[in-house]
Amino acid sequence: MKEFELIKHFFTEQSVKRKDVLLGIGDDCAVIANSENQNIVVTTDTLVAGVHFPLNTSARAIGHKAVAVNLSDIAAMGAKPSWLSLAITMPEVNNDWLSEFCAGVFELCEYYNVELIGGDTTQGPLSITITAQGVTPEGKYLSRAGAKAGDWLYVTGDLGDAALALQHINQKVSLESAFIEPVKNKLDYPKPRVLVGQTLREYASSAIDISDGLIADLGHICQASNVGANIVLDAIPLSNIMRDSLIFEDAINLALTGGDDYELLFTVSEDNKVGMETSLSHTGIQVTCIGQINASQTISTTLNNKPVPINDAGFEHFST
Amino acid sequence: MKEFELIKHFFTEQSVKRKDVLLGIGDDCAVIANSENQNIVVTTDTLVAGVHFPLNTSARAIGHKAVAVNLSDIAAMGAKPSWLSLAITMPEVNNDWLSEFCAGVFELCEYYNVELIGGDTTQGPLSITITAQGVTPEGKYLSRAGAKAGDWLYVTGDLGDAALALQHINQKVSLESAFIEPVKNKLDYPKPRVLVGQTLREYASSAIDISDGLIADLGHICQASNVGANIVLDAIPLSNIMRDSLIFEDAINLALTGGDDYELLFTVSEDNKVGMETSLSHTGIQVTCIGQINASQTISTTLNNKPVPINDAGFEHFST
Repeated sequence: MKEFELIKHFFTEQSVKRKDVLLGIGDDCAVIANSENQNIVVTTDTLVAGVHFPLNTSARAIGHKAVAVNLSDIAAMGAKPSWLSLAITMPEVNNDWLSEFCAGVFELCEYYNVELIGGDTTQGPLSITITAQGVTPEGKYLSRAGAKAGDWLYVTGDLGDAALALQHINQKVSLESAFIEPVKNKLDYPKPRVLVGQTLREYASSAIDISDGLIADLGHICQASNVGANIVLDAIPLSNIMRDSLIFEDAINLALTGGDDYELLFTVSEDNKVGMETSLSHTGIQVTCIGQINASQTISTTLNNKPVPINDAGFEHFST
Repeated sequence: MKEFELIKHFFTEQSVKRKDVLLGIGDDCAVIANSENQNIVVTTDTLVAGVHFPLNTSARAIGHKAVAVNLSDIAAMGAKPSWLSLAITMPEVNNDWLSEFCAGVFELCEYYNVELIGGDTTQGPLSITITAQGVTPEGKYLSRAGAKAGDWLYVTGDLGDAALALQHINQKVSLESAFIEPVKNKLDYPKPRVLVGQTLREYASSAIDISDGLIADLGHICQASNVGANIVLDAIPLSNIMRDSLIFEDAINLALTGGDDYELLFTVSEDNKVGMETSLSHTGIQVTCIGQINASQTISTTLNNKPVPINDAGFEHFST
């Protein structure tokens, strides 16, 4: 998929630059200044069957995931999701499938009070494109830029479980039967960190959601912020299932490069650290400090306080 | 494609109803009340290769058309287009193709000062989904609802040329060689009636863009407005190419049911008729009165002042 990432430059070569577009292509969301009191954030994500989810994924999981990955982008901006447009292309009309798909879509919409305001249904190979929008108070949004040397690096939840599920589905690992359902749920029903994102608006210096993998997405923060970072591998949060299923090195590699976690990765200054941790303690969502931003413009990793080389599979976005 | 139209009901069965959504699913655009001064309109349209454009359509035409059909929806709301999100799925990366595609996208964007604010590129069968947004002064937008018995029915431009081009491509008619390029341009490079739409905001009682065909889209206005209409077939604007290529009955049938015109169909009260015609005369765009709204809740047609039965192929949306 690397070449598909690289073609983004075609779409940034436009001559139109509107004053009301505060942030255009290149972050988790665009930011529009449309009113005096608030900004609108906009994101678009496509899921293609067999590429972004296994072909036998349930309709409800596909509906959930299509919404979740978009709300996750909105969460990474610190915004409150509000409106969705949904375009679905499918090979044939199957009422049972559609009913389940809509159940998956609407569960998340209801939870976050997001209204589906439009869409399009067309015939073709299964694919879903959602454009989600949200709002933030004027000028108060997070982006990938803003991390500064000395800031602490945090992540929500545990990393790598979705990638572990995918490895099981692709028969690259064999999981204990009791572990299959929990990790498949992490893959099929990612939880967008919407409330955490809104809390972070007051504390974080930068944020991104982890869709491509920890290294790749940290690379996006480093590139946009013009900084580097060190990751303390021992600190990366791993689930008990992950620790019981893989040796440490394999588990860390999945956490670093697996992607599909939809957890938030963010940076916080020393001054905001206590305030952030106190505020987030009310949400019940685990946050873990996994390293620190520095001025090096590279990503390094340490284990037991010693530098270790990292798997470079996750560097494709940062190596330019 | 009828069954794909009918499944829309799945997406309207949501429980979330936000106060800031003035118009949800079911019109050319949704309308959001996000500021005190203006509303935002939002539309999403997908083009699938082989369904919405012939497989051998040029990349530039595909880029143009993907933007044009969305701006046409914004025009039908009387709004000013502002921002685009573009999701493209393609089988492989082809730089020449992409370059031409982007040229098609950006030509229209530059003309209307619309900024591409985000998107997604994924691998799969060729398909493009665009979400376009625009603005109107607060409360000042057109919709399909609002037509009243006695209002006059108008259409911009000529009808049926795009359908004629498609018939030529599908070898159902054989066009004179000099006619091929002009009608293919109508099919490949539809002109969204953006400036007409904004002018109509002050005069029209309802509006829609003609994508499905005159009868079907008039059906949408009649259904939303709870009225009926009579179309004067002799008044339907046909190009000289159309008149020279088909007998009158065939030409009228294409104009009634062909679709892909992306002209605006709108209704104007007797009181606003002169004002509308005067204002539009400055735009240089032809507008033609083709009938009148009535209270019948059906669509009738007359020729030489006599009622004639119409081809019912265009009635699928209205016959519920």
